[in-house]
Amino acid sequence: MKQPQLLDEEKVFKDPVHSYVHVRDKLIWDLINSAEFQRLRRIRQLGTSFFTFHGGEHSRFNHSLGVYEIMRRILETFEGRIHLSYEEKLLCLCAALLHDVGHGPFSHSFEKVFRYHHEDWTRAILQGDTQINRILKRMGEDFPKRVAEVIAKTYDNKLIVSLISSQIDADRMDYLLRDAYYTGVNYGNFEIERILRVMRPGEDGIVFKYSGMHAVEDYIMSRYQMYWQVYFHPVTRSAEVVLRKIFQRAKELFLQGFPFRQEPTLLLPFLNEQVELADYLSLDESVILFYMQLWRNENDAVLKDLCARFLDRNLFKYVEYNPRDFRLLADLKELFQSADIDPAYYLEVDTTSDLPYDFYRAGEDEERIPIMLVMPSGELTELSEKSEIVQAISGKRRFDYKLYFPMDKVMALPEELSGKIRDRLGVMEDA
Amino acid sequence: MKQPQLLDEEKVFKDPVHSYVHVRDKLIWDLINSAEFQRLRRIRQLGTSFFTFHGGEHSRFNHSLGVYEIMRRILETFEGRIHLSYEEKLLCLCAALLHDVGHGPFSHSFEKVFRYHHEDWTRAILQGDTQINRILKRMGEDFPKRVAEVIAKTYDNKLIVSLISSQIDADRMDYLLRDAYYTGVNYGNFEIERILRVMRPGEDGIVFKYSGMHAVEDYIMSRYQMYWQVYFHPVTRSAEVVLRKIFQRAKELFLQGFPFRQEPTLLLPFLNEQVELADYLSLDESVILFYMQLWRNENDAVLKDLCARFLDRNLFKYVEYNPRDFRLLADLKELFQSADIDPAYYLEVDTTSDLPYDFYRAGEDEERIPIMLVMPSGELTELSEKSEIVQAISGKRRFDYKLYFPMDKVMALPEELSGKIRDRLGVMEDA
Amino acid sequence: MKQPQLLDEEKVFKDPVHSYVHVRDKLIWDLINSAEFQRLRRIRQLGTSFFTFHGGEHSRFNHSLGVYEIMRRILETFEGRIHLSYEEKLLCLCAALLHDVGHGPFSHSFEKVFRYHHEDWTRAILQGDTQINRILKRMGEDFPKRVAEVIAKTYDNKLIVSLISSQIDADRMDYLLRDAYYTGVNYGNFEIERILRVMRPGEDGIVFKYSGMHAVEDYIMSRYQMYWQVYFHPVTRSAEVVLRKIFQRAKELFLQGFPFRQEPTLLLPFLNEQVELADYLSLDESVILFYMQLWRNENDAVLKDLCARFLDRNLFKYVEYNPRDFRLLADLKELFQSADIDPAYYLEVDTTSDLPYDFYRAGEDEERIPIMLVMPSGELTELSEKSEIVQAISGKRRFDYKLYFPMDKVMALPEELSGKIRDRLGVMEDA
Amino acid sequence: MKQPQLLDEEKVFKDPVHSYVHVRDKLIWDLINSAEFQRLRRIRQLGTSFFTFHGGEHSRFNHSLGVYEIMRRILETFEGRIHLSYEEKLLCLCAALLHDVGHGPFSHSFEKVFRYHHEDWTRAILQGDTQINRILKRMGEDFPKRVAEVIAKTYDNKLIVSLISSQIDADRMDYLLRDAYYTGVNYGNFEIERILRVMRPGEDGIVFKYSGMHAVEDYIMSRYQMYWQVYFHPVTRSAEVVLRKIFQRAKELFLQGFPFRQEPTLLLPFLNEQVELADYLSLDESVILFYMQLWRNENDAVLKDLCARFLDRNLFKYVEYNPRDFRLLADLKELFQSADIDPAYYLEVDTTSDLPYDFYRAGEDEERIPIMLVMPSGELTELSEKSEIVQAISGKRRFDYKLYFPMDKVMALPEELSGKIRDRLGVMEDA
Repeated sequence: MKQPQLLDEEKVFKDPVHSYVHVRDKLIWDLINSAEFQRLRRIRQLGTSFFTFHGGEHSRFNHSLGVYEIMRRILETFEGRIHLSYEEKLLCLCAALLHDVGHGPFSHSFEKVFRYHHEDWTRAILQGDTQINRILKRMGEDFPKRVAEVIAKTYDNKLIVSLISSQIDADRMDYLLRDAYYTGVNYGNFEIERILRVMRPGEDGIVFKYSGMHAVEDYIMSRYQMYWQVYFHPVTRSAEVVLRKIFQRAKELFLQGFPFRQEPTLLLPFLNEQVELADYLSLDESVILFYMQLWRNENDAVLKDLCARFLDRNLFKYVEYNPRDFRLLADLKELFQSADIDPAYYLEVDTTSDLPYDFYRAGEDEERIPIMLVMPSGELTELSEKSEIVQAISGKRRFDYKLYFPMDKVMALPEELSGKIRDRLGVMEDA
Repeated sequence: MKQPQLLDEEKVFKDPVHSYVHVRDKLIWDLINSAEFQRLRRIRQLGTSFFTFHGGEHSRFNHSLGVYEIMRRILETFEGRIHLSYEEKLLCLCAALLHDVGHGPFSHSFEKVFRYHHEDWTRAILQGDTQINRILKRMGEDFPKRVAEVIAKTYDNKLIVSLISSQIDADRMDYLLRDAYYTGVNYGNFEIERILRVMRPGEDGIVFKYSGMHAVEDYIMSRYQMYWQVYFHPVTRSAEVVLRKIFQRAKELFLQGFPFRQEPTLLLPFLNEQVELADYLSLDESVILFYMQLWRNENDAVLKDLCARFLDRNLFKYVEYNPRDFRLLADLKELFQSADIDPAYYLEVDTTSDLPYDFYRAGEDEERIPIMLVMPSGELTELSEKSEIVQAISGKRRFDYKLYFPMDKVMALPEELSGKIRDRLGVMEDA
Repeated sequence: MKQPQLLDEEKVFKDPVHSYVHVRDKLIWDLINSAEFQRLRRIRQLGTSFFTFHGGEHSRFNHSLGVYEIMRRILETFEGRIHLSYEEKLLCLCAALLHDVGHGPFSHSFEKVFRYHHEDWTRAILQGDTQINRILKRMGEDFPKRVAEVIAKTYDNKLIVSLISSQIDADRMDYLLRDAYYTGVNYGNFEIERILRVMRPGEDGIVFKYSGMHAVEDYIMSRYQMYWQVYFHPVTRSAEVVLRKIFQRAKELFLQGFPFRQEPTLLLPFLNEQVELADYLSLDESVILFYMQLWRNENDAVLKDLCARFLDRNLFKYVEYNPRDFRLLADLKELFQSADIDPAYYLEVDTTSDLPYDFYRAGEDEERIPIMLVMPSGELTELSEKSEIVQAISGKRRFDYKLYFPMDKVMALPEELSGKIRDRLGVMEDA
Repeated sequence: MKQPQLLDEEKVFKDPVHSYVHVRDKLIWDLINSAEFQRLRRIRQLGTSFFTFHGGEHSRFNHSLGVYEIMRRILETFEGRIHLSYEEKLLCLCAALLHDVGHGPFSHSFEKVFRYHHEDWTRAILQGDTQINRILKRMGEDFPKRVAEVIAKTYDNKLIVSLISSQIDADRMDYLLRDAYYTGVNYGNFEIERILRVMRPGEDGIVFKYSGMHAVEDYIMSRYQMYWQVYFHPVTRSAEVVLRKIFQRAKELFLQGFPFRQEPTLLLPFLNEQVELADYLSLDESVILFYMQLWRNENDAVLKDLCARFLDRNLFKYVEYNPRDFRLLADLKELFQSADIDPAYYLEVDTTSDLPYDFYRAGEDEERIPIMLVMPSGELTELSEKSEIVQAISGKRRFDYKLYFPMDKVMALPEELSGKIRDRLGVMEDA
């Protein structure tokens, strides 16, 4: 059995959300100092949200330390309630720290266009030829694989998996608190100390003492509010639309053999769809933003325009959209075409949906593990059976559809055409 | 006289420090949406401090809005106490908003190596061919110049200048609060509401009611603490040293005609020392970081090594240094040379100094305007005459010298040489 | 028309919840300094909650200033949206400041036993021979009456009434924030700045912009949580039960002509049910607590015991109770009697219920005015039609029943009898 | 050796300052529930400060729990650094919890007039016939005495004494944070987590790592600010003056055989200067306030007036006073006498002074133990040798003298006499 390797003295990171992040294990310290983990400093946690909430500029590095710290505290509260070996505890801490290590810049949009899943890169970073892999192996040849399994939810100890992937886990708890803190939106606040106090290790995952039900309710409400107030904010989504269109245009130009003034060296592997781990690790937000700077002076009008829009925050406007109104979309496409505004780049329906809490829904793509309460009798009960508030929202998926387009371009059209389009869009002037 | 042009409805930005930033003037709104102002989103307020305090990742955009908001509140408290015309008020607001608009990425180090002052670029942006200039001109042909003068402290209304450039102005108040908030270091907190309540318009600048002296003391102490705890933190300074060395090396290689694998297009104007406004505006942190990514794979060992150090946060270590110990520095240089570690890039003395408060010191490069208190009698008294605490620290410049070097390189040397160097440095093992 | 009488300089009170409470009107200043208003310093806002949350020791004085300050801010946001005369504004401010002025010590329990309504005393204080009345009259002979009407909800301007008495008014907003702050329970936090920003004067009361619906939802949830977490906490209710029993016993003893060692001078008017305004104004918490000190040494075993319980926080324990289980209560009464523990003082069912939000229910005793949203079209919609979360909880009254009793007395009984009682109560040992 | 007696499950108190107060030991739990400790709920921590800062209404109960919690955390950080037996740890915790248990209502003024020291009562409560004594004795016959010695600073382990009585101890740390929180005055904030991190057990008391010096400086500054902003606020002092005069008058009347309408039963032992422990324990703020209610209707004009002043917050005004100006005081006394305003009750010089930090001053009444820093070398250095800021203020006692008097009485005098007095006082109208 592996012996704990501790630092001579505990190290701390000053953290505005958790006050301090405490590190005692040499392994964790070395992981934090690895090149692959430091790379997370160059990838923002909230993607394009900073366009809406200027405070939301914090990195995934920031968040990853926070998830680790919450995990550390959870394990502390488990002391004396359940036996976890040193190795298992470290497994939990590593999974918490590294769960996002495969994220790329603006993952949401970038992955869609260049077709990959950051989850695969997480696995590759843990198990491939990386500093992280070498550090993890100090705990045993198969330790990197075990960490990857915990993150991928395939690990056989369900309790451990639930600590990092369930409806109320270290990851979600940190990002709600952290995103609330940096954006200044208080809705994300909930009493984490209280939640940690009522959390108990169950057989199939963490469970919560019934006496703490209100704290759990409060957490669910915070989550609900943050989704609709922050994560799905239409301005953020507009920036995502513009971003997606930039990637889409660059890819199309590349496939058409467009002569870029300067070869987009660091993006070539992605454009060619032949990405090595090293290529992936060189990619960060600064690379994307750098090419936007170049492309805003390229010869292609669409690419140029879209990059300038993103850099200068001259985003698309939006109107509510009824997804059954196929006629409207067809009409608008036609009108845009006749106005010489390519609808493939300048007209987009964006959909968001959220399921604030779910008990269980066999066969869905996201089968959610329900939150279980331990009653004073020791019996387990599913949260929504006890909480009216949670019951009221559980299983109710809420959808939101919006149609994005560049209002300035529409306004610049000849009076009649512009009027027709605006009429169809239902907007009379600058929204 | 210009008529106020107001927005139909007040707009707000959610701000974690001031709760909301309120905008009523169309001019301000348009300035915020200009390309040159949006560029500040891509330049961090605290340069390399995020390496020490991971929360310090906020941008100058963030801070600039905050300075504007504090100015707005100052002007509000002046209502009924002094008459300022609409134009003068707007002048104050614009100066507050735009005071940092000429900043470049990692200004401190970049400016040193490429020899320019961001203040000149601020003026150029206000008065040159920019969106900002066109927006400002709506207030009159010479309005941009007047804004530039307020920022440059040459404007003839001293009160207005003091609001943005004095020992207790909108700029300093915002950055102390903001940097404290994002880094999580509480020292920067002071009671801004109290300070705003006791601030009064004086003839030669803002003055403070005597009854609020303790709030001013508290502000001075916050400032003092933030300087030594955050701004001068040795790890941050180490990152600055590495950064400076990267720029220095890139410049030297360029001057030597080194064949870069890929031409550093966006840096050429700086390397050639022929920078146009457009070149300057294309420069942001992503450009610098992008080239570091390229350069970490370049053929030059020094550039490669330094870039990897910065990106992976493998910074230099440090020891305290006595600036009179010339002998030590000479010896170390020699030892480094004999170890094939170029001291020009790997051995650096870094000095910081701070003057927490000063009353007046004719002829110094930084003649500081003292903080004046209005006594109940109406008489003005300089702060340190009333405050023992401020008196105790006023005029006392404090210096700090440290010697930076790559410990890992030293440790990797043959035993004897490594021992000699460490002996001379006074470090026995990894600090 | 009355001219505004302003203070030479604005006065402020440092307030931990609102930062500062601002006073500009001489009238408000004088009201705060009146004897009747200062009396509120001697009455706690949360009654017996400090037994559960030791931080909840703040007074009604504290809260009343807060309600006034919120009202002041609401009126500020109304500027330019609706015309209110100086008199009407002052009416709102006075009603906010004075709405609780008739409260007595531990009102909830005291009023029940001594049969009166503090609302009647509020009216008496406003319209009777008091400093407050004389100050209010400076605005006109009928001004005190108008203030009383606003507080009593009988004033004819529904908008003004709604500012102080509706489901989201200045009173509720202050107490949620304030009680959360002092107790340290974060649930009560909501974004008051956001709520103030979206509040609009409607014809029949305040309405809220649809875009701020989430802030309103968040407020409703805070309210819900505070009710169940703080206001209805069973330990607080236990203290209320003990308190009620003390008053009940003292009254009974008085009616029986019990020879009190020292005449309860300040309580005589209440015991005799002949209370003059001056008597009422002499009553505060210190009077009640003083008599408890005396009574804990009285000759009556019940009174003695109950007072010691309250002073030393040796409260009753509780079990859940099914209100339909009449049999249980009857059995317990009998068992208590046989154990010589008078059930009239030592066995009590306490019921709480809450209706977190209601749209409208004609004919109920508490007809609640619904919260209305203004849609972008200008149309008004009732909140629960738009908010799923609010809909889920609206109109659902939740009840809670508990049975309170002195566990220590039960434990001290002879084994068999004690066992029987505990068996019937369903408790095996000290809960 | 005594075995730890732990609670089945840790109990917590929700605390707004420390988030939670954690209790694991049965002994601590029982002490908190003792009658003598619960009595602290009826004594305010800040005496009359609530007249100045309405939020400062919290009790000594509140503070005592906080001191206990800080002590618990200090002991936690000592784990692994120094060996303390279970008994010693409990000794520290008990001393922290009980250090203020002998305080009476408005101690400062009450003790002065009735000539006793609350410290003596603390000892009496610990060692006399009390619930607390019986609980403490469970740890050994001499345990109460040892707790008393730690509190009295006569215990032989200086480290343990220093945790509760030194310039930076659990008591001071809690009250600064707590008083700042409740009053809303931010000055009292300092980074307690950082201080706890750098605190080390030294041989003669706690010491601090040099690297944490700035946190200690910040604490000293907080202390300095709280003293001058809050604790010595002239309005608070005015209330203390009025209070003292009430006690003084009541005592004088009693000694003169004045026929009180109702005998002040609970105060008799104090008036007779024959106080038993039981008498002392019956005394709390409600008793004092109750008698003020009675006395405001007494036959003595002075007592009546003073009580009404206190209850209605109609306090004395003040002017700055030069303590060497004996002439002024003599003149004023004469003028007051001629105006029939008894100077013995209506004219008072109040002095405050503070020594923000001191290193050592042999022979002074308050010999202060200096704050020691541990340098990286292990050597100890006194704080002010390293900190310029602390040096600047150390050993400098600051004095403040004010003259208190009832302005309203002066204003009500005939024009000429009133003018003469105001002239002499240097005030022209209501201050």
